Amino acid sequence: SRDSWEKDVPPGVVTGLAWTASGGDILFVESSLSKGKGNLTLTGNLGDVMKESAVLALEYIKSHAEELNIDPVIAEQNNIHVHVPEGAIPKDGPSAGVTMVTSMASIFTGRPVKPRVAMTGEITLRGKVLPVGGIKEKILAAKRAGILEIILSKDNQKDVNEIKNIYVEGLTFHYVENIMNVLELALK
Amino acid sequence: SRDSWEKDVPPGVVTGLAWTASGGDILFVESSLSKGKGNLTLTGNLGDVMKESAVLALEYIKSHAEELNIDPVIAEQNNIHVHVPEGAIPKDGPSAGVTMVTSMASIFTGRPVKPRVAMTGEITLRGKVLPVGGIKEKILAAKRAGILEIILSKDNQKDVNEIKNIYVEGLTFHYVENIMNVLELALK
Amino acid sequence: SRDSWEKDVPPGVVTGLAWTASGGDILFVESSLSKGKGNLTLTGNLGDVMKESAVLALEYIKSHAEELNIDPVIAEQNNIHVHVPEGAIPKDGPSAGVTMVTSMASIFTGRPVKPRVAMTGEITLRGKVLPVGGIKEKILAAKRAGILEIILSKDNQKDVNEIKNIYVEGLTFHYVENIMNVLELALK
Amino acid sequence: SRDSWEKDVPPGVVTGLAWTASGGDILFVESSLSKGKGNLTLTGNLGDVMKESAVLALEYIKSHAEELNIDPVIAEQNNIHVHVPEGAIPKDGPSAGVTMVTSMASIFTGRPVKPRVAMTGEITLRGKVLPVGGIKEKILAAKRAGILEIILSKDNQKDVNEIKNIYVEGLTFHYVENIMNVLELALK
Amino acid sequence: SRDSWEKDVPPGVVTGLAWTASGGDILFVESSLSKGKGNLTLTGNLGDVMKESAVLALEYIKSHAEELNIDPVIAEQNNIHVHVPEGAIPKDGPSAGVTMVTSMASIFTGRPVKPRVAMTGEITLRGKVLPVGGIKEKILAAKRAGILEIILSKDNQKDVNEIKNIYVEGLTFHYVENIMNVLELALK
Amino acid sequence: SRDSWEKDVPPGVVTGLAWTASGGDILFVESSLSKGKGNLTLTGNLGDVMKESAVLALEYIKSHAEELNIDPVIAEQNNIHVHVPEGAIPKDGPSAGVTMVTSMASIFTGRPVKPRVAMTGEITLRGKVLPVGGIKEKILAAKRAGILEIILSKDNQKDVNEIKNIYVEGLTFHYVENIMNVLELALK
Ligand SMILES: [Ca+2]
Ligand SMILES: [Ca+2]
Ligand SMILES: [Ca+2]
Ligand SMILES: [Ca+2]
Ligand SMILES: [Ca+2]
Ligand SMILES: [Ca+2]
Ligand SMILES: [Ca+2]
Ligand SMILES: [Ca+2]
Ligand SMILES: [Ca+2]
Ligand SMILES: [Ca+2]
Ligand SMILES: [Ca+2]
Ligand SMILES: [Ca+2]
Repeated sequence: SRDSWEKDVPPGVVTGLAWTASGGDILFVESSLSKGKGNLTLTGNLGDVMKESAVLALEYIKSHAEELNIDPVIAEQNNIHVHVPEGAIPKDGPSAGVTMVTSMASIFTGRPVKPRVAMTGEITLRGKVLPVGGIKEKILAAKRAGILEIILSKDNQKDVNEIKNIYVEGLTFHYVENIMNVLELALK
Repeated sequence: SRDSWEKDVPPGVVTGLAWTASGGDILFVESSLSKGKGNLTLTGNLGDVMKESAVLALEYIKSHAEELNIDPVIAEQNNIHVHVPEGAIPKDGPSAGVTMVTSMASIFTGRPVKPRVAMTGEITLRGKVLPVGGIKEKILAAKRAGILEIILSKDNQKDVNEIKNIYVEGLTFHYVENIMNVLELALK
Repeated sequence: SRDSWEKDVPPGVVTGLAWTASGGDILFVESSLSKGKGNLTLTGNLGDVMKESAVLALEYIKSHAEELNIDPVIAEQNNIHVHVPEGAIPKDGPSAGVTMVTSMASIFTGRPVKPRVAMTGEITLRGKVLPVGGIKEKILAAKRAGILEIILSKDNQKDVNEIKNIYVEGLTFHYVENIMNVLELALK
Repeated sequence: SRDSWEKDVPPGVVTGLAWTASGGDILFVESSLSKGKGNLTLTGNLGDVMKESAVLALEYIKSHAEELNIDPVIAEQNNIHVHVPEGAIPKDGPSAGVTMVTSMASIFTGRPVKPRVAMTGEITLRGKVLPVGGIKEKILAAKRAGILEIILSKDNQKDVNEIKNIYVEGLTFHYVENIMNVLELALK
Repeated sequence: SRDSWEKDVPPGVVTGLAWTASGGDILFVESSLSKGKGNLTLTGNLGDVMKESAVLALEYIKSHAEELNIDPVIAEQNNIHVHVPEGAIPKDGPSAGVTMVTSMASIFTGRPVKPRVAMTGEITLRGKVLPVGGIKEKILAAKRAGILEIILSKDNQKDVNEIKNIYVEGLTFHYVENIMNVLELALK
Repeated sequence: SRDSWEKDVPPGVVTGLAWTASGGDILFVESSLSKGKGNLTLTGNLGDVMKESAVLALEYIKSHAEELNIDPVIAEQNNIHVHVPEGAIPKDGPSAGVTMVTSMASIFTGRPVKPRVAMTGEITLRGKVLPVGGIKEKILAAKRAGILEIILSKDNQKDVNEIKNIYVEGLTFHYVENIMNVLELALK
């Protein structure tokens, strides 16, 4: 079913944009911590490429912990669990990369995400944000869900420019090159 | 075969509602603890999505242990086993999420579940209760089994409203948004 | 080939009733202990559901160790191995649950099983004994093998009642609701 | 290719009888120890049932270590490796059980196997030796390979009795019920 | 999409040459370190042969750590993660071997790779650089991407010699026999 | 492509003879050590039987470490990695057994292999060298590659004897029964 933006979400919850068989939709990525030894658990009916996005996101976080002001003790003495509702729907592809890294940075720092912000983009290990597909459908879904700001790869700007103005008015687009830009824009 | 509600069930036993090829049915989720290191074991011929529900439920419990008044020593020094009878029947889907988290909270706190209460709903990592399908069939099965109170996602209220009154009279419905509401309603 | 009851079997050996493609048969479940850390090993060409029965049986034993008078040191400092001869025959289904839990309780307590007793029934984590199929074929096989007492779920009594008297005379049936009843009836 | 009996084989090497697509053959089971923590490694292109025979054999050895005069320190501080030449030929079935348990007992005790002895039979966890198939083909192969004594399950005596005398003259048959009988007959 | 060379890349990022269904392309191999016990994690939708290249590269690095001036403490107290963007594209084959070993040597030594250098070649455990296929397509892609220097196996020189001069002018080719030559040429 | 013998190869590199879809070829087996706990890693696109050859070779080495003058500390405090170039070619079968055990013995003792020596043969756990197929094709390939001495199982002598003299002149054949003979002949 169609989801809407939600207010006052706790740290670890981030809104992504997904492109599904039935069109665009927003999706939430949720992270939580529990006492442990730094292991990663994943749920939400995720395909192999999407699971790799989560592994990649966690490696990025771990190797940039200092720049991100993450307490190393928290990262070492907790397991992190990442869930993408809804369990009945298989999900795959690399485009939730930015959403996953933002969710993990949010739960590790305790900083929640700003309201009405959504994002989509593949990440790389050195922090680049790569363009993804389905931009038009994702933007329509974001608008319908009450999103006001969208974070995208700089290389997706051309895709946004091709959309009729009526579909994008009221939306603010942030075009980024690096994960650090995403986190600055998204975290409170 | 058709099951009925049972009285004086021990902590860890919770009644869920299932939607099977042969119509609705009630199903039990059972949890037990044994000395160990916090591992989770699952039995009952469960599919991947249902197994993920159990992982998700345990992560929720672990990251909300304090709010749930769970002794951290009990959670760390025991393994938890979750079983869904009956072994010959394959089971899958996310709708046992609330039943699993209630079963785990019950065994960890030692608080049994109130009699004649059943539930169905998907859970998310931050505690949301999402709507599920097969509501009409599940309610008919619950009534047939002697259930008096049913806990559902708020987003399933519209599905209940569409059922003819004759099928729901005598039943009390609790529409919830968060797992914490489920636990307050279900645990003694 | 057809098996017969055996006398003076050591602790850990229990007679079950199986329903195979070629009719009913008795089958033995054997358990042994060896120095270790509480791990479970399974052999005998067992399918997934039958393996789950063994996991379930061991969890039941572990969480009821005190009631069963099992020395916790024995359970923690030994591995348990469960074997179901004969290796060339694939075996599956939940109906060996009571046989497995009895075999494990026997080896952990050192109490052998009474002679000429056989059993069949699914178990649940809280100790319920559920009814199983193929009752008529199993009883014929038990009689042929020289069995005198049969332990079954209370919910299988109706199936026994439907069998012509000539096939059941000389047999004593014990209808049980809980695993504890099985162990009281079967262990010396 | 056809193999022959071999003299002065070291501890751990035992001659079994196999029934293959191209008729009967003798096969060797070889075991070796190396410093470790009691793990079992298997090679030789073995199918699942044959791998289970090895697990079963090792469990039998471990739970009867004292009766077998096996130094517990040797069993705990070594890994055991079991190999069945020849690697290009897939092998399966339970009939190498007695050969495997004899090979393991031989390497753990340092006692080699008597010359010109071969064996075939399934084992169970409590030490029973069960009958196996292909007896006629196996006996012909044993004779061709220069074997003089053959160890079999008591329940295979009827199969030997059906073979024409000309094929079995010069061979001594030992019919056993228990693994302990096998080891007494086979080990020097 | 087509990629270009990038300036000021951090240690661990190396440009490889790939031969895909849609022609040649450059690809990046990225490595990062995070506190751990020397484990290797791989992402980027890699096939089995490409994963083996990474294992091989790490083994080469580990057994030549001293020659490579790698601080043994860094290698032992960190996990290494290797990623090959882009996650939606399956990648396989041995030709990224030199790129992977260079990426790992770069992150372990902290020495970045020289700009506008790309490479392709299979590696062996003793450090040989073996020739690979698709040389013409790879060189065209390298030129298009702004690469100026290309490192190849000496056994691929004949393939370069067969390409028309117009396609290779402005490019410098380095033909190597050993991984050590690659690292001397590529690392700053 | 066709390979040639190589001079001054380091310890751990051994020349084997392979029989492929496109005829005979020589192949190299490479081993290296790195600090660790005695684990074995395998690369080179190896099938299950060939992987088992490596496991078998290492077990042989471990259980004969003293006879082979291998420092037990080196074997216990290092991981061993075995690679068979070239990664794009799937390889399988037991005939690289002697090559693998020679490669491992070479790296553990630091003794390189004599030049222009190649070998082929299956091994068993007690050190027997079994005959293998494709002898004619392998010998032609060895000669073409500049090999002067070939080590084979004694049971392959009949296969060599059937080859026309012109194809074998200039080659010295060593027929062996045991791995120890191989190592004496091959290691410097
Ligand atoms: Ca949705
Ligand atoms: Ca929804
Ligand atoms: Ca039912
Ligand atoms: Ca039932
Ligand atoms: Ca039978
Ligand atoms: Ca039998
Ligand atoms: Ca043979
Ligand atoms: Ca042979
Ligand atoms: Ca590209
Ligand atoms: Ca790109
Ligand atoms: Ca070649
Ligand atoms: Ca080559």
